[in-house]
Amino acid sequence: MKIGIIGSGVVGQTLGAKLVALGHDVVLGTRDPQKLDEKKNMAVSLKEWLASVQNKAKVVTFKEAASHGDVLITCTHGQISVEALKLAEADKVGPKVLIDTANELDFSKGFPPMVLASQDRSVGENIQKAFPNLKVVKTLNTMAAPVMVNPKAVAGGDHTIFMAGNDKDAKAKVADLLKSFGWSDILDLGDIGAARGPEMYMGMWIRLYGTLQNGMINIKVQR
Amino acid sequence: MKIGIIGSGVVGQTLGAKLVALGHDVVLGTRDPQKLDEKKNMAVSLKEWLASVQNKAKVVTFKEAASHGDVLITCTHGQISVEALKLAEADKVGPKVLIDTANELDFSKGFPPMVLASQDRSVGENIQKAFPNLKVVKTLNTMAAPVMVNPKAVAGGDHTIFMAGNDKDAKAKVADLLKSFGWSDILDLGDIGAARGPEMYMGMWIRLYGTLQNGMINIKVQR
Repeated sequence: MKIGIIGSGVVGQTLGAKLVALGHDVVLGTRDPQKLDEKKNMAVSLKEWLASVQNKAKVVTFKEAASHGDVLITCTHGQISVEALKLAEADKVGPKVLIDTANELDFSKGFPPMVLASQDRSVGENIQKAFPNLKVVKTLNTMAAPVMVNPKAVAGGDHTIFMAGNDKDAKAKVADLLKSFGWSDILDLGDIGAARGPEMYMGMWIRLYGTLQNGMINIKVQR
Repeated sequence: MKIGIIGSGVVGQTLGAKLVALGHDVVLGTRDPQKLDEKKNMAVSLKEWLASVQNKAKVVTFKEAASHGDVLITCTHGQISVEALKLAEADKVGPKVLIDTANELDFSKGFPPMVLASQDRSVGENIQKAFPNLKVVKTLNTMAAPVMVNPKAVAGGDHTIFMAGNDKDAKAKVADLLKSFGWSDILDLGDIGAARGPEMYMGMWIRLYGTLQNGMINIKVQR
């Protein structure tokens, strides 16, 4: 599958590497593909990342990534998801599936960050509203990057991942992708309005992370 | 133990009945103890409730409940928690432990309700701020009433309950009470500011409830 990733931080790099390993045709979109040596936050440089995937992927602009992928994945900070997708001209790519992995976390006052999701605010809804051509599926935002692509590393994989989106076929496609990552308990919460659930849950996640001092965690919905 | 419950809806009745069964000296505080025949929401009338506990408890005013209990439990709607505790004159009862079980859910636009908790708003913090004499412990707000007092009914009890509060001794006392209900995985999230975690999680819970059409659920934190 052709996959275009919008955002080249830890999440984009981690998902990209996994998708390359699974044999997909991956491009990693970044704001300035010339800056391959730059290190940002906790991510390695894009040069190092390319080496880590044996140069089986390409680093491109946001726009090239949006154009390349049959499936798009957005993993910039949630505060700039819509802006990055505008730079990517995602309104012009037709009815593609877009996987939204983002959270709006404000670290300006230190840890724990402020979680900006609320009863009337979610990144997933904002993206769907700004890009009605895209089939937005919210998922993967409720855990740290290493858990996203290796669920079995936590409790043997006995925990839950969530999806929300308006298009059933898009969700079925995303569920297949999640299964290929090792996920088995995939819970469909409903339309994109349900993105508020997993996004507000981040208010819990950051407290769990603070208390347990461990990012290799996730929740299992017992029912 | 002498326990004063502020709020006589489903949660207050359920916790009260369990505490009576465990042998505690329970009073259930309600706005107007004369209205024993009234049925509200999903709760039975207080007359029926008293019969169900073989009249081993008393129905009293908020103020009498706050005065009676060595431990207080507030379980009105979160929007009126502070108001009810003011009616209870909870500022005059000294340094008692107060268990806050409440959520602010706005059903005015139907289901799913709007979850009013956010990055800078929680019932637990509001109560602690309004009543500095109380040792507020946030807990029990992340599940339906039947699960609160019978955790083993869901996945054999293999799921997690959260606590947040400023006072360690108060949390130890509350943990003992939770253990007597059958809880084993009790996770201390930190000071009362951490109440935002379990309160924001309700944004997830209501979506889980909507999707699964089942209130007998809870999450297990896998780590």
